Amino acid sequence: MFLPRKIIERKLFEFLKEDLGHGDITTSILIPENVKVKAEIIAKEPGIIAGIEEAKILLESLGIKAEAKIKDGQKTSGGKTILKLEGNARTILAVERTLLNLISRMSGIATQTNRIVEKVKAAGYKTKIACTRKTAPGLEYFDKKAVWLGGGDTHRLHLDDMILIKDNHIAIIGSIKEAVKIAKEKASFSKKIEAEAASVDEAIEAARAGADIIMLDNFSPKQVREAVKKLEEEGIRDKVLVEVSGRINEENVLEFASMGVDIISLGILTHSVKALDLSLEVKQVTA
Amino acid sequence: MFLPRKIIERKLFEFLKEDLGHGDITTSILIPENVKVKAEIIAKEPGIIAGIEEAKILLESLGIKAEAKIKDGQKTSGGKTILKLEGNARTILAVERTLLNLISRMSGIATQTNRIVEKVKAAGYKTKIACTRKTAPGLEYFDKKAVWLGGGDTHRLHLDDMILIKDNHIAIIGSIKEAVKIAKEKASFSKKIEAEAASVDEAIEAARAGADIIMLDNFSPKQVREAVKKLEEEGIRDKVLVEVSGRINEENVLEFASMGVDIISLGILTHSVKALDLSLEVKQVTA
Amino acid sequence: MFLPRKIIERKLFEFLKEDLGHGDITTSILIPENVKVKAEIIAKEPGIIAGIEEAKILLESLGIKAEAKIKDGQKTSGGKTILKLEGNARTILAVERTLLNLISRMSGIATQTNRIVEKVKAAGYKTKIACTRKTAPGLEYFDKKAVWLGGGDTHRLHLDDMILIKDNHIAIIGSIKEAVKIAKEKASFSKKIEAEAASVDEAIEAARAGADIIMLDNFSPKQVREAVKKLEEEGIRDKVLVEVSGRINEENVLEFASMGVDIISLGILTHSVKALDLSLEVKQVTA
Amino acid sequence: MFLPRKIIERKLFEFLKEDLGHGDITTSILIPENVKVKAEIIAKEPGIIAGIEEAKILLESLGIKAEAKIKDGQKTSGGKTILKLEGNARTILAVERTLLNLISRMSGIATQTNRIVEKVKAAGYKTKIACTRKTAPGLEYFDKKAVWLGGGDTHRLHLDDMILIKDNHIAIIGSIKEAVKIAKEKASFSKKIEAEAASVDEAIEAARAGADIIMLDNFSPKQVREAVKKLEEEGIRDKVLVEVSGRINEENVLEFASMGVDIISLGILTHSVKALDLSLEVKQVTA
Amino acid sequence: MFLPRKIIERKLFEFLKEDLGHGDITTSILIPENVKVKAEIIAKEPGIIAGIEEAKILLESLGIKAEAKIKDGQKTSGGKTILKLEGNARTILAVERTLLNLISRMSGIATQTNRIVEKVKAAGYKTKIACTRKTAPGLEYFDKKAVWLGGGDTHRLHLDDMILIKDNHIAIIGSIKEAVKIAKEKASFSKKIEAEAASVDEAIEAARAGADIIMLDNFSPKQVREAVKKLEEEGIRDKVLVEVSGRINEENVLEFASMGVDIISLGILTHSVKALDLSLEVKQVTA
Amino acid sequence: MFLPRKIIERKLFEFLKEDLGHGDITTSILIPENVKVKAEIIAKEPGIIAGIEEAKILLESLGIKAEAKIKDGQKTSGGKTILKLEGNARTILAVERTLLNLISRMSGIATQTNRIVEKVKAAGYKTKIACTRKTAPGLEYFDKKAVWLGGGDTHRLHLDDMILIKDNHIAIIGSIKEAVKIAKEKASFSKKIEAEAASVDEAIEAARAGADIIMLDNFSPKQVREAVKKLEEEGIRDKVLVEVSGRINEENVLEFASMGVDIISLGILTHSVKALDLSLEVKQVTA
Repeated sequence: MFLPRKIIERKLFEFLKEDLGHGDITTSILIPENVKVKAEIIAKEPGIIAGIEEAKILLESLGIKAEAKIKDGQKTSGGKTILKLEGNARTILAVERTLLNLISRMSGIATQTNRIVEKVKAAGYKTKIACTRKTAPGLEYFDKKAVWLGGGDTHRLHLDDMILIKDNHIAIIGSIKEAVKIAKEKASFSKKIEAEAASVDEAIEAARAGADIIMLDNFSPKQVREAVKKLEEEGIRDKVLVEVSGRINEENVLEFASMGVDIISLGILTHSVKALDLSLEVKQVTA
Repeated sequence: MFLPRKIIERKLFEFLKEDLGHGDITTSILIPENVKVKAEIIAKEPGIIAGIEEAKILLESLGIKAEAKIKDGQKTSGGKTILKLEGNARTILAVERTLLNLISRMSGIATQTNRIVEKVKAAGYKTKIACTRKTAPGLEYFDKKAVWLGGGDTHRLHLDDMILIKDNHIAIIGSIKEAVKIAKEKASFSKKIEAEAASVDEAIEAARAGADIIMLDNFSPKQVREAVKKLEEEGIRDKVLVEVSGRINEENVLEFASMGVDIISLGILTHSVKALDLSLEVKQVTA
Repeated sequence: MFLPRKIIERKLFEFLKEDLGHGDITTSILIPENVKVKAEIIAKEPGIIAGIEEAKILLESLGIKAEAKIKDGQKTSGGKTILKLEGNARTILAVERTLLNLISRMSGIATQTNRIVEKVKAAGYKTKIACTRKTAPGLEYFDKKAVWLGGGDTHRLHLDDMILIKDNHIAIIGSIKEAVKIAKEKASFSKKIEAEAASVDEAIEAARAGADIIMLDNFSPKQVREAVKKLEEEGIRDKVLVEVSGRINEENVLEFASMGVDIISLGILTHSVKALDLSLEVKQVTA
Repeated sequence: MFLPRKIIERKLFEFLKEDLGHGDITTSILIPENVKVKAEIIAKEPGIIAGIEEAKILLESLGIKAEAKIKDGQKTSGGKTILKLEGNARTILAVERTLLNLISRMSGIATQTNRIVEKVKAAGYKTKIACTRKTAPGLEYFDKKAVWLGGGDTHRLHLDDMILIKDNHIAIIGSIKEAVKIAKEKASFSKKIEAEAASVDEAIEAARAGADIIMLDNFSPKQVREAVKKLEEEGIRDKVLVEVSGRINEENVLEFASMGVDIISLGILTHSVKALDLSLEVKQVTA
Repeated sequence: MFLPRKIIERKLFEFLKEDLGHGDITTSILIPENVKVKAEIIAKEPGIIAGIEEAKILLESLGIKAEAKIKDGQKTSGGKTILKLEGNARTILAVERTLLNLISRMSGIATQTNRIVEKVKAAGYKTKIACTRKTAPGLEYFDKKAVWLGGGDTHRLHLDDMILIKDNHIAIIGSIKEAVKIAKEKASFSKKIEAEAASVDEAIEAARAGADIIMLDNFSPKQVREAVKKLEEEGIRDKVLVEVSGRINEENVLEFASMGVDIISLGILTHSVKALDLSLEVKQVTA
Repeated sequence: MFLPRKIIERKLFEFLKEDLGHGDITTSILIPENVKVKAEIIAKEPGIIAGIEEAKILLESLGIKAEAKIKDGQKTSGGKTILKLEGNARTILAVERTLLNLISRMSGIATQTNRIVEKVKAAGYKTKIACTRKTAPGLEYFDKKAVWLGGGDTHRLHLDDMILIKDNHIAIIGSIKEAVKIAKEKASFSKKIEAEAASVDEAIEAARAGADIIMLDNFSPKQVREAVKKLEEEGIRDKVLVEVSGRINEENVLEFASMGVDIISLGILTHSVKALDLSLEVKQVTA
């Protein structure tokens, strides 16, 4: 998920602008124009850090020196400095909250993702852990990047990069088989086709019709097992990827992983995030 | 927090645009141009609903009829339809995820806020429950509005609407007393002045220097009690509002409320949100 | 490629704004404020029409009634009215050039694409004709949509919807095999992986390494034949899609189609466009 | 047509953003963050180069060193390096297509314009070759600048910089004479007034009424000759500029030039462009 | 200066957005969501009204009915209602200040312009009164339109619609003669060429070199007379327009007008504006 | 009112873009690409300078060196250089007018504000002089900042930073008392509450109801005296700030100041501005 820094910079300025309104009135009143400070961002609890690249881009574009003490995707043990800043005090204070909000959300996402990824890996499964498009509005790029840094799969990035036939499409068209058939005829060769099945029968139909990926939506473990077994019996298990989704969380994820599915996707990775606790501390006035 | 709908519409379009990329390729391939459907958004769990106004603005601006079955700020018991939609199928399917992401986040915030507000109220306290500026980046308006709908106080909206002297300002200036003094001289008469105290002594100093609000930051319950007592002893308790902040959550909130503080602020209200579970279901193809 | 009309409207307004500057000074001086007219857009030569949807969106958003006399993707014989307009004269005259520029470019693209698509189809081949990302700057959406309306395949929409390993990636990494291997490990399961081969050997390597699509770049017909043959000999022809690209045009397209490739992509479809000749004629002053 | 580089930079970023979507996923997966490369853009066929200034602005704003080997408006013989690049590999690969699309279109326009300009000049005529507003949507600035670099006249830049009375204005007002009269009364002194004549009589009427420029629209050579002659007979030939437009191309341009008109304008210069063939080649990995 | 209303709407929303911040908190707290009112905008002093078109566009786009009681460019005697509004109370109160700020500035400009225009006309002179580019930043369109509504000439609209050679250009090039010569060779045929003369000699030189308009900059009345006389003696007075500019105001404007110049331009028309006094009064609560 | 320079830069570019259209055609024709000059901005009359920070930001972002010879808020005696520039001639000439328009407006505002502030101070009063929201549209930030630099109070910055109950709110709600009561219940603790009184009785009612600030709107001096006296008699004078507004100007300001009010606000400070006379002079061609 590479965007040149100038493109990211523009997104970050939108966040900053919203918080500034007509400006930081506290800082402009209290802090003289040319004061310079050294400051540090400290992770107050352990977790996977994400958002360092974005933080550096925002700070450097505002003329603040920023030295990362950890890389995106790495684990901090808590109580550690993750970023050192040096520059104009007014600017650092004005950007502080926007900066922390971004890193703490992204790190929160990366941390939760990584915990689940590692749990599955530790249990010996190769199942991929993926997020969904259930991100905070406007934060699709940052939320998905945080999942990626946590070791998760970004899944469909937005509405134009994969054919994903969902329950409502099928409700309108009439059958999953017909939907997959139309998609195979009309979609660009460059796209994978995934279909969301509401039953074991639908899963088999979709696979037979040539879908690249079958999503078993809100299946019970028993249903998942049955679907996988039928795909194997029909000899088409290796022609499709199998994804399970719906009602899966950190507690029950291993049960699903154990059934030989390829991908487990969880909305919780991005829609229900616990921010990582961070603070910015001014350490020294340098001028 | 009133914004004319055209202004909100523009914010919502930014969210939608990000998810669309070059367009909803699944829908354009599967669903004929003129299909019309009736659909419903269903809250799958109980909670306080927020985001209905925004949902209606987004849908109506896209030519979709939207009928609210609940008002913003009201409680749903779960399993209930909160919004009925009718219109072009392609448009409804393309906007579905953006719409649900917004309502589920806002409702999640309103629900958590309301639970704490009601807990404090039920215990007989008048303490206000406020959020902070620890919102998701770019969502300051929506996150704060959701807090408000949940019965919470929005606190400072952004950097230009109150003087809030924080630890880092004081670190640069040297003392809370001096900082409050400068603020009183230079700030517009239209602004309240709040100062963040790191100790009981700082709290008293700030109050004496004329701050309108004293924030007791990361105080233990014992320290809070001491600060309030000293303010009373000095006869200045009723000249200031007292806010406590830091390490407060649903579990320990009543302990702080019991000490006679005016405001309790919690970052958790907006930085660690559990989305309310919603789904959009196509009910009928009408054309 | 479905975008809700409000999203397209915003793109179209950017085009209009550029041409307006501080406004249409001729029209404001000559045409009284409330004059209403009927007008028609006429295709002065035969071709496939594209851009009608966009024209209607732009016109209707400006308060002009627009009645299409042909659908996007249909063939006009030339000399025919394709769109009837009715409304405020100033507005129609101010938008005329922007409107015609868009429809004539999109129709030019659709027409050229369709001619090649039909040629290949008439010769009995199932080869898909695809465009590339060699569009006019800023017109990726409209250019690709026009290709689609002409019967072509849109190929990769932009940089985030498929893994496409190109010569310069391979130059940096060292070998196509290694590049495909890394992509297979790290890419999201939701993406197809295509690799651009510079030789028959590279093509085979990429296929063996598990690429979904092999692009034979600037291959002579002889080399194409050899590559296809080798893929068949190795028994992996049906595991990959084969795309040829480079130096292909309307004249030599059948030669490549005859070799059993799956996709032929042509930059010319979008980078070298002959606009379809259109004019807008005011037919009647109605008020 | 001078715009400060920061203003052009913003236009170029819009182009880049459209192609990036959520980012270059191929490059982010394959190319490590800190790889640096040297690369070259090569013109694979002869032509007039345009877009070098824009390319440098875009590259330098992204932190890439760019050294031009040719100036805008100069001729390349083909097979030559026109721009050398050095910098971060990910950035260069992500911007490659946007960059090439812009230079190849602008150079295509400059090349076609220059060929016609030189043809007319070689035949000994002083007639100016001008483009129209028939540009690609959103590319008015770049298309017109390319015409200028090719030696052509930019004509009216957009709707606010000249009074240009066209057929549809006259259709509403009733007569060209009346239209010119109104324009002379109401237009700012700072504007030239041009009128589009559909017949020899209209041309004479417009000149008599005081138009600065007469456009002979879709006139046959015979009609052009007649119009010029009549203007001379009336003694007003030197009070107006005469422009011919409509159905003129590289083949018949000399015939019109030979009749002593001042300006020949051709829509083809910008609406039907053959892109100049370019490629970007990574030459060396430097870090 | 015609812009379609949707384009103006976008400019007006930018103004509104700046004033709203996170919303009108007073109105959202005090006024229930569905209250409807009738209100009136009253001109509290006499003047020329401008901005009615913009006011209607802004109001109607926000869903407020707006009925103009006067047209742009007409005179009000003061104490009169100029616009009647009806609609949602919250929206009307939130937009009130932005609306009044725009109309009062535009009307202030139109009033001052008209007073000078009428003074010159009453004295029997045909001299045009023009503004300059000395507008408020970002308000070039609205300021120039107000001048136009007041009966003034808009002069150059921005930097791309006329060649205007100023003192600093001449300082770099060396002589006004050389500057005009270069401009005549290189400028598009569609542009007028104006040159700013600092002395009588420069004025004559510029006219001889073929400038369309000569600006006598900061000339004393005596110098203006001398310049006009010399132009007549050389027989080139009727080949150029003569503009005077600099240190001209309502008091001395007739002296300059009396010397037979064609245009008098005044920066004061847009840089030093007295706003027309307006108020918005809620007349009736209707729902 | 501190905004990081990148945020201000973006606002300034919007101003510049509007004036540029498709570019500075005079400069591009006359001035070779690489000419460098030294230039100076000269204040031609005495006043308080404002806008230097903005000028530096704009110039430096365009690659022009800018050396301030005076600080924002300082007094110039007229005829003095306030800013020295050095850099690319084309860029300096293209930005000249936008730059001067901004500094001359801001300095005009600061100068008028300062004159009134000093007059009140010289007479021995502590009354604050405040502006209103009657700014030029889109210039709220710059106009308010200029007032601040002139020594004035910025008052409410926009609609979200204070509760200000105005005549129209009261007209809808029914009484000032009720309005203040609702505001006290519902407003965030972080906001001050001001109420606009139309009579002495309303002023007293509002103060009793707990408003923080009472605005005496369009009161005669006699009414102001009466209101202040009654507040004292009720013993609530020191619980509220008293602001007078309406029909106050430089002439009568001392009369109001003499009555012991806390704040005098004047719309004239920002809605009726006389620009400070400035010019930019190229001093030397350096390359």
